[in-house]
Amino acid sequence: MNFRRATEKDIYQIVSLFADDPLGKKREQLNKPLPETYLNAFKAIDADKNQELMVVENDNKEIIATFQLSYIQYMNYYGGLRAQVESVQVRKDQRGLGVGKTIFDWTIKRAKEKNVRILQLTSDKLRPKAINFYKKLGFIDSHEGMKMHF
Amino acid sequence: MNFRRATEKDIYQIVSLFADDPLGKKREQLNKPLPETYLNAFKAIDADKNQELMVVENDNKEIIATFQLSYIQYMNYYGGLRAQVESVQVRKDQRGLGVGKTIFDWTIKRAKEKNVRILQLTSDKLRPKAINFYKKLGFIDSHEGMKMHF
Repeated sequence: MNFRRATEKDIYQIVSLFADDPLGKKREQLNKPLPETYLNAFKAIDADKNQELMVVENDNKEIIATFQLSYIQYMNYYGGLRAQVESVQVRKDQRGLGVGKTIFDWTIKRAKEKNVRILQLTSDKLRPKAINFYKKLGFIDSHEGMKMHF
Repeated sequence: MNFRRATEKDIYQIVSLFADDPLGKKREQLNKPLPETYLNAFKAIDADKNQELMVVENDNKEIIATFQLSYIQYMNYYGGLRAQVESVQVRKDQRGLGVGKTIFDWTIKRAKEKNVRILQLTSDKLRPKAINFYKKLGFIDSHEGMKMHF
């Protein structure tokens, strides 16, 4: 597996991954051409040095997963830097094959290189398998993840 | 109450708020002079246009609360922008007086102005009163908030 930063050419495939998911298909619009909102989102992410939108390729250079790593500086925890993982999506036919484990091994290593104090994520309670996976990796479910949609 | 962006002069008072808390006192070091890590954290936050480190003043220009609002762009949710609230801390003698409500009224208004799709936060399960407060405001505890400390 190869990890690299996403480029503009990857946008359609990234959105395809999100749309091919029971929760995601209600949220995304996978039309051709793609709604411009996705290009605008990509450009904003790409221009922000604290964001890393990643894709994972297999040996055939197919994108089999995506995730986004954000670095956020806070005053508390002794002025600690945090890394936050979001939008982790593995292609349907690639699940259960260890891709998620490889992504998080990479992410934990990356967070340590960046001297991150806390690595964090929120996981939908409708995805109990994902939550168990994160617990096995060493994440503690110490917090409630609270959302307000507008 | 007056809301304004924090400045370098506010750092000691901000850290004082965090340190005067059952969870925070284990995490912070309120020495004089303050450890440089806090100044470095402030500078990184202040230089990032997606971060708003705020202080709330009373009529005597005393800082009675602080919080940080982060804007994070994602590809999913139709390329939706999120706002994330962290490090909300109200001065001990000011709790239960509606300061938190005023902070969140301000934050929700601000998030809407910025066309945010999701406003989110995580709250420590050791703070059940805070979690109830957020639920009353309209936050849904749909996610597990998972942390890994290094």
